[in-house]
Amino acid sequence: CALENETQVFTTAKTVAASGAKFFRGGAFKPRTSPYSFQGLGVEGLKLLAEARAETGLPVITEVMDTRDLDIIEKYVDALQIGARNMQNFSLLKEVGRSKLPVMLKRGMSATIKDLLMSAEYILSEGNFNVLLCERGIRTFETYTRNTLDLNAVPVLKAETHLPVVVDPTHGIGLREHVASMALAAVAAGADAIMTEVHNSPELAKSDGEQALLPHEYQDLVTRVRKVAEAVGRTL
Amino acid sequence: CALENETQVFTTAKTVAASGAKFFRGGAFKPRTSPYSFQGLGVEGLKLLAEARAETGLPVITEVMDTRDLDIIEKYVDALQIGARNMQNFSLLKEVGRSKLPVMLKRGMSATIKDLLMSAEYILSEGNFNVLLCERGIRTFETYTRNTLDLNAVPVLKAETHLPVVVDPTHGIGLREHVASMALAAVAAGADAIMTEVHNSPELAKSDGEQALLPHEYQDLVTRVRKVAEAVGRTL
Amino acid sequence: CALENETQVFTTAKTVAASGAKFFRGGAFKPRTSPYSFQGLGVEGLKLLAEARAETGLPVITEVMDTRDLDIIEKYVDALQIGARNMQNFSLLKEVGRSKLPVMLKRGMSATIKDLLMSAEYILSEGNFNVLLCERGIRTFETYTRNTLDLNAVPVLKAETHLPVVVDPTHGIGLREHVASMALAAVAAGADAIMTEVHNSPELAKSDGEQALLPHEYQDLVTRVRKVAEAVGRTL
Amino acid sequence: CALENETQVFTTAKTVAASGAKFFRGGAFKPRTSPYSFQGLGVEGLKLLAEARAETGLPVITEVMDTRDLDIIEKYVDALQIGARNMQNFSLLKEVGRSKLPVMLKRGMSATIKDLLMSAEYILSEGNFNVLLCERGIRTFETYTRNTLDLNAVPVLKAETHLPVVVDPTHGIGLREHVASMALAAVAAGADAIMTEVHNSPELAKSDGEQALLPHEYQDLVTRVRKVAEAVGRTL
Repeated sequence: CALENETQVFTTAKTVAASGAKFFRGGAFKPRTSPYSFQGLGVEGLKLLAEARAETGLPVITEVMDTRDLDIIEKYVDALQIGARNMQNFSLLKEVGRSKLPVMLKRGMSATIKDLLMSAEYILSEGNFNVLLCERGIRTFETYTRNTLDLNAVPVLKAETHLPVVVDPTHGIGLREHVASMALAAVAAGADAIMTEVHNSPELAKSDGEQALLPHEYQDLVTRVRKVAEAVGRTL
Repeated sequence: CALENETQVFTTAKTVAASGAKFFRGGAFKPRTSPYSFQGLGVEGLKLLAEARAETGLPVITEVMDTRDLDIIEKYVDALQIGARNMQNFSLLKEVGRSKLPVMLKRGMSATIKDLLMSAEYILSEGNFNVLLCERGIRTFETYTRNTLDLNAVPVLKAETHLPVVVDPTHGIGLREHVASMALAAVAAGADAIMTEVHNSPELAKSDGEQALLPHEYQDLVTRVRKVAEAVGRTL
Repeated sequence: CALENETQVFTTAKTVAASGAKFFRGGAFKPRTSPYSFQGLGVEGLKLLAEARAETGLPVITEVMDTRDLDIIEKYVDALQIGARNMQNFSLLKEVGRSKLPVMLKRGMSATIKDLLMSAEYILSEGNFNVLLCERGIRTFETYTRNTLDLNAVPVLKAETHLPVVVDPTHGIGLREHVASMALAAVAAGADAIMTEVHNSPELAKSDGEQALLPHEYQDLVTRVRKVAEAVGRTL
Repeated sequence: CALENETQVFTTAKTVAASGAKFFRGGAFKPRTSPYSFQGLGVEGLKLLAEARAETGLPVITEVMDTRDLDIIEKYVDALQIGARNMQNFSLLKEVGRSKLPVMLKRGMSATIKDLLMSAEYILSEGNFNVLLCERGIRTFETYTRNTLDLNAVPVLKAETHLPVVVDPTHGIGLREHVASMALAAVAAGADAIMTEVHNSPELAKSDGEQALLPHEYQDLVTRVRKVAEAVGRTL
């Protein structure tokens, strides 16, 4: 989720690289509900990300929250993320639509599938066709889980568009012990990629520690995901 | 979904039996939003169900909607269903709690996971421990799908209780072309059983035709479900 | 909400009668999420209700939960209530549709306005035209309030049907200190009647004590409701 | 809603000024779900707004969507609006927190009351204490109305904070014929101000025509709002 310090970044990056991850995500600028929560390391975080890439060879992705930050962010990363809270920040969508980098667009907490597709259209219409759609949980009346990961969106999005569909079970269900089940379900439903949070010491995490996988849980999950992918006739 | 006539019942029962189904569900008494919709065949339907069982050897299950119907229904079927709309019909829950037959309890459209467990408790507390919990979609703001099948409930229910968890992707997503994806996802998430609607001529169905699988789609799904079950180390 | 004992019933009935109430509601059979919560006094409660009517002259209303209870309930009360959890208990709707008594039908927690109208249709289609519709809060993602009282339903129902519209702000918002504001808003929105819970010692209540008004708060509310009713050109 | 052309702006501004409005809102930059919908007049719209103020004496407010637009917008208007889709655009919140102008913060479609208060905190924590909170409807399962105007938020916000509470019934219910009922209800619930859309020819409107009040409906509403305000002991 958030980049916190050099040790955390490098340990985690090496773990996920060794387990077969294809991308490394780290938040430099963090959108937090409260202004008094940890807000991210900023440019310092971007530099850590770039070093992690140099060390592991894994391409890196980070969230953009402000049109004015885009120039600096583009210098350090391989892909951009638009977070759920900014899914209908249309100025930002247009701006990343003019970038050369791939954009992962996360579904807003109360965005319909159609809203998500229309927001993707803002990016596409500016000429950036490299857009990935990410299901990460919607808001419902259920309070047991943090959000309701809406896997129904996976087959629907696959049918409605050619864009790749990523699923983020970590934010979706928000409970570490159930992240793996939802990741496997996402793959069975047809997702093209899974994005999960991993933390070497989640109990010390500055945000969302209770939902991040431990490194060994992540390795185990990668193995299981591959089996389900094969069972539904795919490779991830 | 609903039992309609002899041909439909027998054709469908034979198809699902041949494909490896473990149970045959048919609605004799149907809860319909409008009083002017088809309300089911009643006792005539129960008799058809019993004949289908005799012919195929498949145990049968049907929905109970009224405490006064329980005696007659118990004579014809092997298991009882409590529908989503009656999940908090506490008189009915207590009554089936005094039955010897297994009860499949469907989650209400706006019932939390905790509400579902408390409703199960009504049945258990009367002495009937043979209860199956069924996730069948909740109501959210999303309108593309009929309901939002909440697969998050599967690992949560498996962790919170020892009761078997069934998933009904047909009502959950409500779109025939996506039922299979959601069934596979349900199995990967840990469901113990899948319940789907099958109709030999869905375009003629008196209710919910647009979401029922065709017989050949059902056979294909059974094969795929088995592969995913194996991939997650289970048999169904 | 629930009838608890003689003192509570008579004190409350006299208070609300003196303040200008038109009806006295008391639950004899209580639908409770958990089977281990207080379930109501049953027939004993019905007798208390009838005595309260004799003493105060106020007509009384109580909830029916089971088709088998209707005969006995009809002997003691002036009107029937169908609770939110039974709004789509179609057997029960048909049965009260054959009664001579007025029926107050409460909107289900996740029932659309159209669902509510269709459920009313079940009662009307059996010949009982004396149906009142009651908005009592729906389930949304908001957790600050117990439910989300949906006052939008008031003008919509008034436009869609000739049936009287009642609002229950007590269950709707679920917080005593805000019940009055929502009651006034309901009247301004066009509601024909307001139903609130009153308890002489809410801290001792066996259910929902935290949301019941104290007798003096109720008296004060009646005065304020009348002023708002006048301001929108109505009498209640 | 959106500023469209000179005639529309001046006619509407004069009408609402004559009816006793305290503020005139017009969208120069418009957040639209689709990139192919009308996006607003931009700076041209700001100039029209400023002219409308000169002509009528009414202070004007407009929406800010991008941190980079703030400087130019501040030159033309008296107050800033943060729209529902940007309620958690934290960069934008911080930026308007450094402005000298009042900020009206609209509740996001799936924002809890607590989320709204935390977003206000982003503005307050930068030193701008002149924040108004606006309830404008949340997303629920109900489809009859455009959104579910959540009037429960009014008494809750009044109790939780000293900030003024504005209600926008136009977007909230989204149906012209019911806007007035919800406006009256909002005042009865304790709202400090009502914001409605008015259009002299709604059938020609470039956005949201079906929900804008006609000028004569607006005048009538102002009179009725005053009566309800008096009935609850307030002036607006």
